[in-house]
Amino acid sequence: MLEITRPTLLLDEQKCKRNIQRMTARAGRQGVKLIPHMKTPQSVEVGSWCADAGVTAITVSSIKMALYFSRAGWKDITVAFPVNVLEIAAINEILAMGVDLKLFLLDEEVAEKLNEGVHQKVKVLIELDAGYNRTGISTESTEPIRRLAGKIMAAEKLELYGLYCHPGNTYQTHGIEEIRQIWAAAIRKMNLVRVALKDIKPDLIVRMGDTPGCTVVEQMEGVDEISAGNFIFYDLVMNYLDVCNEEDIAVAMACPVVAKNKDRQEIVVHGGAVHFSKDHLFDAGQQKFFGEVVILAEDGWSPIIEGIRVKSLSQEHGVLIATDEIFEKVEIGDVLGILPIHSCLTANLMKSYTTLDGKVIDHMEKSMT
Amino acid sequence: MLEITRPTLLLDEQKCKRNIQRMTARAGRQGVKLIPHMKTPQSVEVGSWCADAGVTAITVSSIKMALYFSRAGWKDITVAFPVNVLEIAAINEILAMGVDLKLFLLDEEVAEKLNEGVHQKVKVLIELDAGYNRTGISTESTEPIRRLAGKIMAAEKLELYGLYCHPGNTYQTHGIEEIRQIWAAAIRKMNLVRVALKDIKPDLIVRMGDTPGCTVVEQMEGVDEISAGNFIFYDLVMNYLDVCNEEDIAVAMACPVVAKNKDRQEIVVHGGAVHFSKDHLFDAGQQKFFGEVVILAEDGWSPIIEGIRVKSLSQEHGVLIATDEIFEKVEIGDVLGILPIHSCLTANLMKSYTTLDGKVIDHMEKSMT
Repeated sequence: MLEITRPTLLLDEQKCKRNIQRMTARAGRQGVKLIPHMKTPQSVEVGSWCADAGVTAITVSSIKMALYFSRAGWKDITVAFPVNVLEIAAINEILAMGVDLKLFLLDEEVAEKLNEGVHQKVKVLIELDAGYNRTGISTESTEPIRRLAGKIMAAEKLELYGLYCHPGNTYQTHGIEEIRQIWAAAIRKMNLVRVALKDIKPDLIVRMGDTPGCTVVEQMEGVDEISAGNFIFYDLVMNYLDVCNEEDIAVAMACPVVAKNKDRQEIVVHGGAVHFSKDHLFDAGQQKFFGEVVILAEDGWSPIIEGIRVKSLSQEHGVLIATDEIFEKVEIGDVLGILPIHSCLTANLMKSYTTLDGKVIDHMEKSMT
Repeated sequence: MLEITRPTLLLDEQKCKRNIQRMTARAGRQGVKLIPHMKTPQSVEVGSWCADAGVTAITVSSIKMALYFSRAGWKDITVAFPVNVLEIAAINEILAMGVDLKLFLLDEEVAEKLNEGVHQKVKVLIELDAGYNRTGISTESTEPIRRLAGKIMAAEKLELYGLYCHPGNTYQTHGIEEIRQIWAAAIRKMNLVRVALKDIKPDLIVRMGDTPGCTVVEQMEGVDEISAGNFIFYDLVMNYLDVCNEEDIAVAMACPVVAKNKDRQEIVVHGGAVHFSKDHLFDAGQQKFFGEVVILAEDGWSPIIEGIRVKSLSQEHGVLIATDEIFEKVEIGDVLGILPIHSCLTANLMKSYTTLDGKVIDHMEKSMT
């Protein structure tokens, strides 16, 4: 058993590798290329597990993260974030490493500035919005899309590679059928745009991201590439959406018990907002909660324990509420496992993983601060 | 003007030092000892600004943070978190550095284990709860408090120093009067406990924390020491509670503008949950928001701009909604200032500060990962 004395993010390497293998196998069956999103693990080592499963290209969420993975030897990296014209120097640094870098454009002026600023040719995807309403040009707005595509085609240093859409509205659904409907509509819209651009460029790639869709959508016709990330670990958000089983969740926080309050049946652990972030879910009774509890063992952790939950978080404190029976069993000095609501943000705060056999695994936020 | 290309946490050194000076002056006037809480800045440099203002003792929120400040030479450190019996080795490491360490106890068994485990004498405060209901023995429960105090007095390696209470329920109030009422009640309850322990130990210190109370309470009779932390930077939570003016907020995120959506009048910046955390407030119309916008200048930033706000955050994206007029003025490539909802969590994520003259200031999460 690991000797844990303070909040520690445990990573079940087998579960994680199984998640990666399943998604690569699924993509293979569906004839789409998986370009996994490293925003979740932010780890060169976890990236290498993807490479072991046949992955050759990755997605990242910032130029900083692209630098981190470039330095580790990755040669095909997409930055899934609108080009920030202030970071062109860093873009050139990555290109100079021989990386086949792919960037997102959604604005003509940015396209111009990028073209003027880069020292060598760079591939770009036009970011489209099929209804999530965060970033991207609306798939309904054919004219601005055509203008941007034309501008990119005319730009000496830009190569139009494809169209991208993140249907993040799948996170706001209530189950698998709704996720599939969102994707079906998004695929249809993306392909209408592809057709509308045929005279400008005939062979555009359609790429789509988000773990709910990539995990449950069966009908991928019209999609060439997928770029989900959360599936590498999954978490309670995905479990509550029925996108994964709880035994697929590959990370758990280990939190020491530091206090008990019998009157309120509350257990206080070291594990707060600086470890978990502040994401929460609502249970069937509309009660907010910040994590579910598991029992840690040598070879991983138990299923979720009914009757105990994280009810609130402050900076370092996690307050759990438990039934009488469970309250009596937990002792100060125990280390409880807590499944995170949102694994990406928890990993980002913890900046390190400990595998079940005690190996410490890197995270970008540790090696690039 | 600083050259900013990616999300950067700006620190206005003058505002910060003014906040520190005001609080030390206030404590001096009231005859209480200020033991500022470093959980907010988590920075040796900011700690040294407190020392410059006469501070000799600090509070921290974890043993890790106590190690960080011990190594920087601080000799009087309180860990404002229940003793974690699994961390006694680290406690001994700190004691061995000659630190006058003060720890929180609220459980008899933990007191026993601490007494057995420490290699030299350590001071302890009994953590009490006057109504916040997070940790601490209820001030109403005289018997368990007396038992614990008796146990501490009988323990060879423990020295009973005082009573502590964090009236964190001041954060849930709607203004200054309510904050003062909470404190008045808490001070009364703490002093009833002090009287009830007189036969066990006659000279117990009463220490209370929390920025709202320490900033606005006038009547401090019955309190010996205060230990607030957020006041060092303040933030929008404090501003919305009327505890500080917006010009007292000493930190602002600088976020590059990367996209604009005219149809929705939305502006997208690089600045998301990995930079701000996910704390939010509600405006007068019960609309959730995640930050307010200021204009950055060479010597700091403007007052809050009306008509633009952070409406949502995802991992790296911040989406702002703006009036027509403001929308038109903001350009892609601009760098906007955003005042954080909760400065402690934002600083913890950013792991570094940049002063207005470009000096980079340390944060524990950078030097101790």
